[in-house]
Amino acid sequence: MNISHIEHIGIAVKDLQKSISFYENILGLKCYNIEEIKDQKVRTAFFKSGDTKIELLEPTDPESTIAKFIEKKGEGIHHIAFATDNIEQVLTELSEKGVRLIDSKPRKGAENLNIAFVHPGSTFSVLMEFCEKNNNN
Amino acid sequence: MNISHIEHIGIAVKDLQKSISFYENILGLKCYNIEEIKDQKVRTAFFKSGDTKIELLEPTDPESTIAKFIEKKGEGIHHIAFATDNIEQVLTELSEKGVRLIDSKPRKGAENLNIAFVHPGSTFSVLMEFCEKNNNN
Repeated sequence: MNISHIEHIGIAVKDLQKSISFYENILGLKCYNIEEIKDQKVRTAFFKSGDTKIELLEPTDPESTIAKFIEKKGEGIHHIAFATDNIEQVLTELSEKGVRLIDSKPRKGAENLNIAFVHPGSTFSVLMEFCEKNNNN
Repeated sequence: MNISHIEHIGIAVKDLQKSISFYENILGLKCYNIEEIKDQKVRTAFFKSGDTKIELLEPTDPESTIAKFIEKKGEGIHHIAFATDNIEQVLTELSEKGVRLIDSKPRKGAENLNIAFVHPGSTFSVLMEFCEKNNNN
């Protein structure tokens, strides 16, 4: 399986602006993009540190996955995303190895990436995402 | 504040060997080091993906922080660690900005790094660590 690096770490937050202030003013990281992903009912803010991004996720709807995560577990680290150059192959390989997928086919994520989530029941409770750059990127 | 990259992501696991098998056989990452940190009452396994490590943490004592984390929240992502070349300066700066520190002075962590943890009460519930390469590394 071709994983090149950790693409991002997803962090669930209640208030995007307050959290952005922390990452900018305390940690000195720069928010380079804010994007609403209607499909996932979140607003996201992106920072980069080395070759890995931090993706803050604020729910835009109380029924969204992130709102439910915060309700159940509180704010905090939500998922890890691995970068690959062939997401279809990753999903086939994971499936063949008996790993339970949330997305059996890639779908469009933030920053125009093709993404798919793997079920934490197969990964010792770590929600994992795989990301592939879209050819049109 | 000089953060160069995300040094590692710490993941709490119940059974190090079973988790190592998953990261090696399913994700294709290579465990390059296993280390017991008596001070923190954990055994750790290290993998590298890009410039970021994955650090699996298995408790060696039911009273350890990691054992208590697993008891309360279950297995899963535990902390993010940022790499810096001046941890003393980072701690001074965080402290001056009113951030609550778990370690007010650096201590020795895994892989001979100088480390310090920041309290999640100051970071929107993300347990953050800072790591500095020891001059003797």
